Amino acid sequence: MKAGILGSTGYTGAELVRILIQHPEVELAFVDSRSYEHQPFEAVYSNLKGQAEMTAVSVDPENLPEKVDIVFCALPHRISQHKVILLQRQGIRVVDLSADFRLDQQSVYEQWYNTPHEAPELLEKAVYGLPEWYAEELKETRLAANPGCFPTSILLPLLPLLKENLVTGEHLVIDSKTGVSGAGRGPSAVNVFSQVNENVRAYGIGTHRHTPEIEQELSKAAGKSVTLQFTPHLVPMDRGILSTIVMPLPEGLTERKLQDCYQAYYDHKPFIRLLGTDTLPETKAVRGSNFCDIAWKADRRSGNLILVSVIDNLIKGSSGEAVQNMNLMLGLPEEMGLHHLPIWP
Amino acid sequence: MKAGILGSTGYTGAELVRILIQHPEVELAFVDSRSYEHQPFEAVYSNLKGQAEMTAVSVDPENLPEKVDIVFCALPHRISQHKVILLQRQGIRVVDLSADFRLDQQSVYEQWYNTPHEAPELLEKAVYGLPEWYAEELKETRLAANPGCFPTSILLPLLPLLKENLVTGEHLVIDSKTGVSGAGRGPSAVNVFSQVNENVRAYGIGTHRHTPEIEQELSKAAGKSVTLQFTPHLVPMDRGILSTIVMPLPEGLTERKLQDCYQAYYDHKPFIRLLGTDTLPETKAVRGSNFCDIAWKADRRSGNLILVSVIDNLIKGSSGEAVQNMNLMLGLPEEMGLHHLPIWP
Amino acid sequence: MKAGILGSTGYTGAELVRILIQHPEVELAFVDSRSYEHQPFEAVYSNLKGQAEMTAVSVDPENLPEKVDIVFCALPHRISQHKVILLQRQGIRVVDLSADFRLDQQSVYEQWYNTPHEAPELLEKAVYGLPEWYAEELKETRLAANPGCFPTSILLPLLPLLKENLVTGEHLVIDSKTGVSGAGRGPSAVNVFSQVNENVRAYGIGTHRHTPEIEQELSKAAGKSVTLQFTPHLVPMDRGILSTIVMPLPEGLTERKLQDCYQAYYDHKPFIRLLGTDTLPETKAVRGSNFCDIAWKADRRSGNLILVSVIDNLIKGSSGEAVQNMNLMLGLPEEMGLHHLPIWP
Amino acid sequence: MKAGILGSTGYTGAELVRILIQHPEVELAFVDSRSYEHQPFEAVYSNLKGQAEMTAVSVDPENLPEKVDIVFCALPHRISQHKVILLQRQGIRVVDLSADFRLDQQSVYEQWYNTPHEAPELLEKAVYGLPEWYAEELKETRLAANPGCFPTSILLPLLPLLKENLVTGEHLVIDSKTGVSGAGRGPSAVNVFSQVNENVRAYGIGTHRHTPEIEQELSKAAGKSVTLQFTPHLVPMDRGILSTIVMPLPEGLTERKLQDCYQAYYDHKPFIRLLGTDTLPETKAVRGSNFCDIAWKADRRSGNLILVSVIDNLIKGSSGEAVQNMNLMLGLPEEMGLHHLPIWP
Repeated sequence: MKAGILGSTGYTGAELVRILIQHPEVELAFVDSRSYEHQPFEAVYSNLKGQAEMTAVSVDPENLPEKVDIVFCALPHRISQHKVILLQRQGIRVVDLSADFRLDQQSVYEQWYNTPHEAPELLEKAVYGLPEWYAEELKETRLAANPGCFPTSILLPLLPLLKENLVTGEHLVIDSKTGVSGAGRGPSAVNVFSQVNENVRAYGIGTHRHTPEIEQELSKAAGKSVTLQFTPHLVPMDRGILSTIVMPLPEGLTERKLQDCYQAYYDHKPFIRLLGTDTLPETKAVRGSNFCDIAWKADRRSGNLILVSVIDNLIKGSSGEAVQNMNLMLGLPEEMGLHHLPIWP
Repeated sequence: MKAGILGSTGYTGAELVRILIQHPEVELAFVDSRSYEHQPFEAVYSNLKGQAEMTAVSVDPENLPEKVDIVFCALPHRISQHKVILLQRQGIRVVDLSADFRLDQQSVYEQWYNTPHEAPELLEKAVYGLPEWYAEELKETRLAANPGCFPTSILLPLLPLLKENLVTGEHLVIDSKTGVSGAGRGPSAVNVFSQVNENVRAYGIGTHRHTPEIEQELSKAAGKSVTLQFTPHLVPMDRGILSTIVMPLPEGLTERKLQDCYQAYYDHKPFIRLLGTDTLPETKAVRGSNFCDIAWKADRRSGNLILVSVIDNLIKGSSGEAVQNMNLMLGLPEEMGLHHLPIWP
Repeated sequence: MKAGILGSTGYTGAELVRILIQHPEVELAFVDSRSYEHQPFEAVYSNLKGQAEMTAVSVDPENLPEKVDIVFCALPHRISQHKVILLQRQGIRVVDLSADFRLDQQSVYEQWYNTPHEAPELLEKAVYGLPEWYAEELKETRLAANPGCFPTSILLPLLPLLKENLVTGEHLVIDSKTGVSGAGRGPSAVNVFSQVNENVRAYGIGTHRHTPEIEQELSKAAGKSVTLQFTPHLVPMDRGILSTIVMPLPEGLTERKLQDCYQAYYDHKPFIRLLGTDTLPETKAVRGSNFCDIAWKADRRSGNLILVSVIDNLIKGSSGEAVQNMNLMLGLPEEMGLHHLPIWP
Repeated sequence: MKAGILGSTGYTGAELVRILIQHPEVELAFVDSRSYEHQPFEAVYSNLKGQAEMTAVSVDPENLPEKVDIVFCALPHRISQHKVILLQRQGIRVVDLSADFRLDQQSVYEQWYNTPHEAPELLEKAVYGLPEWYAEELKETRLAANPGCFPTSILLPLLPLLKENLVTGEHLVIDSKTGVSGAGRGPSAVNVFSQVNENVRAYGIGTHRHTPEIEQELSKAAGKSVTLQFTPHLVPMDRGILSTIVMPLPEGLTERKLQDCYQAYYDHKPFIRLLGTDTLPETKAVRGSNFCDIAWKADRRSGNLILVSVIDNLIKGSSGEAVQNMNLMLGLPEEMGLHHLPIWP
């Protein structure tokens, strides 16, 4: 089978390249890039020297250079829409890594992203690409909307508890910490070394665009509207997201019941690792892999439940998850080509 | 005037040395260290080469090598108690940087620190050394209990709001991020470079020993018992604490009212910098200084109030605050010798 | 085929575990550790949670828990000798990652390592495990002495030039920069985060123990005694070595001739990537992989030749190279199980 | 006395601001910036919030907003020339931090900087602003050309040895490692966090523009032409330069003789700290200060002499040195306003 990548030279595009050139069943048909057209891919990503002997091409979605089974769109939101529309018209499967097809409601998209949506009819067809929750739907769809990195780290620990009504979804406070690669590859005042190094800061308090997709998925699981406080922070490291999630601990909810709930949902899932109550997650333990590690703590003294999760933002939070979605869409084993283990240190 | 330091070769001790050798009115009389006895101080701290030409001595508190006006105890908790008792018997002023005299109630100390308190009678005399709140008491006392680093970063933004009953103190969720120097200078599995670098993790969820002193001071300000959820995180940097504090936003509490409240309490305080609602604090902007930067955000959508504060954990969170306490205790201007500006980057 | 590891919980031991559990032809029979005996391996290395379901055992080399085809010794020098002797007596193949069998001459070992050698007769049998240079000998030997990390990064660029007499070996100045993992996993004053972070320093000037093995191999290639100046530096990162090698540029030696020489030796080698004169190596481009990237520059103005090389010190500089040696010793394809690609960033 | 700064919002400009607002004798008259005109300085540099209550202005050098005793030019080379010419015509003292007036010969400047020099007549008048070597000349001049950061770190350890003919100046190999702030504040592919973090690389081999000024000053001291090999490296830290300098060790040159030489030149110099042969410099020990730490090692085995020096590239390598020059030019004590001590960690 064959796959193509639109927008291959950003960080998520390059991770797709790295993962796919090692995938046993899917071959990489083309790597698109406007900025690096005609350049060998390895001239842009020296880590892949000698391993990704392809030349970047500028691809017209209506006239793909090669017949492919699936296309990954690793483009900015708004730009992605137009490409996806053209690909869908040809019946080509798409995993879209932008935010353009994650929200069910056009109005919510337009409000948070401050831009019109050009293909509202596709919003219905798109499946939210969280493979642990929508595997069956993903096997049938031709359009997967890959979740945001923060949402992945937040939804995986929270969804089972809301689905089972173990918690109410009220007073939900989420504090996430991310490495800098989430801000993308382009140089800016935000990601310059001397700005980030030896520094921690919060940003986008109450306004981060990942908020509505988290609330949408939590609300669906809870069967009622869920609102949350989400505060992202930038920490001086390349990769990784750690999310700390606090909410009131309902009477009678024990750590044992939490464990049972998590095991029922995740014991057979290849990329979820349940750490329980004794070990706390750390981002380094998942770096370079598709794992999500989850821990929980019932603090009787304060009457709160605390969940902690970690992922690699560029893999489980983006390109790894996208390949996991592709596997499901193409009828391949979910975990195929995603067995990379984290290195330590 | 003259000061001595017990435990001068840990990070907080060395910061005391650095600050005091530049202090215009106070002379450093002795630097105590058991581990480095007879060694020149600059052999331990090469940054001070040629600037701190003192030799570390092992000091008997009952027989100080020189008459001093004040002694700093920069020793671990439990060990500190014994020295402080002996110094207080001689009527010598003490700023204690350990946790031994921060808690009003012996039982709370013994429960959280799991060790008996040997001088409960001193708990009453000790003043909690948060200079922005206890300046008058500090001018009169002979024993200042220097706050913990996290508590300093959390109390400064929260106290005015509770004191003025602008918020209730319920559903208080605090998420702090600290640099590694807070774990001390001694090598351990926790502070080895390759464990910390490219890594973020939570620790001590619901059990961190700074919790009771935060709750004690908040409860005093609120006039009722306040319980909170405190989750500290370790991030890969040397210095700095950023605390993110979330609570329900009461009806009618506007950002303007918050500003008025903060200005009333802090406008004349030399080390508090109010950033308001437009700028978010970052730890690098206070590194190496005694500043605490505070920002706030009323999020009407979610119905929460979010406060963010930053300090340098070794200065405003420890040794700088200790010198500020000393200044008050000795009748000197509060800010004397503490004018170091942060470098950037 | 089966392999065992003595000393599996140091960084190099754990890298062997990570590589071998993914190796298609070699199964891991036991992981030895005295400090972590009876503990699940994943309790020590959380990155491998769910992936390395083995329990650490304390192994007696005279009574291995299972019949194996090869044993890796990832133990400190001097301790390693004794184990290797016992294993060799049983005819078991060994890749020794310590320095104990790298030097041909007992006296040189004893002088630089300041300890007696207990098995001088094995020095003759041992093959220096630089697979690009001793592939044929490695296929025949039962004892491979895995090179040091610095020597690997220095010998690979230098050996072809000395072997072909393109340079004289005189006035050889080598300046290496290493990440902290090279100092091992045990906490010490040297590898504590706050010592290493935001810091660069030189160490062991003129006395580093990797010096004699570099000189030994260069001298063999040159057919005469080569002496060099080697200065290692510690930089704030986990992994990676960059070596900068400067020597006088002989008359008539062009960059083209250098390219021809390197291609003749390395074009068919799976882990050497020749960057030539236009691209300069960076450690991040090889992190997590078994690659060695090499560049060269003929500076006519100053009359010097400059070589630059990078490796991942724990992989090509240690455990990856050890598996490469194992592959050769067991008759497997040299690159088997070593195809991990570096992630970026 | 009063000083102005042209180009105040780059890193070196901002360091000048920070140092000068604390200077006891010199007042800051204006801070010029084209990009940030009309903005409060503290809006650009949040570390100085509340401390630098000035507004950036766009200054016409022919019509300064206030009468000043001295102007610092912290502008890029080529742009600086024009401003300096206009200021010099008015007889105003200038410390120029660019490269425009460092080289004695116009042709050398034009060759290395690939741009014409507009004021060759000023090259003669300009004094190379290395205060430890040109204090007398600096007291008389109206134009100081502040040295580059690498040159400062290299000249201070080398000059005494060449001046005293202790070494020949042949086979001089210099390997420098710098933090990222040396690349300036503007975002670029070179200084983005994820490019620099966990990475080391060499750059500009044989072509770095600091080469000619190093060779010029060494040649003057040696009384003959000196050529060297200079290789700069970028390491993942904000600040600091460490230079490792290797050359053949002449017969009979002992570490004791080196010590005598260094003491004769530097014992009375306030910012040079001689570490001798037992302690090796580290960049962290000088960060935030105007110190230069120097060590040396005579390696009899290999027949080489190794010097190691460290500075803070933005202070002793730039703005601190510039203020030291200003002090000399204004008849103030050389060290005035430069007593900031490095913090640790």
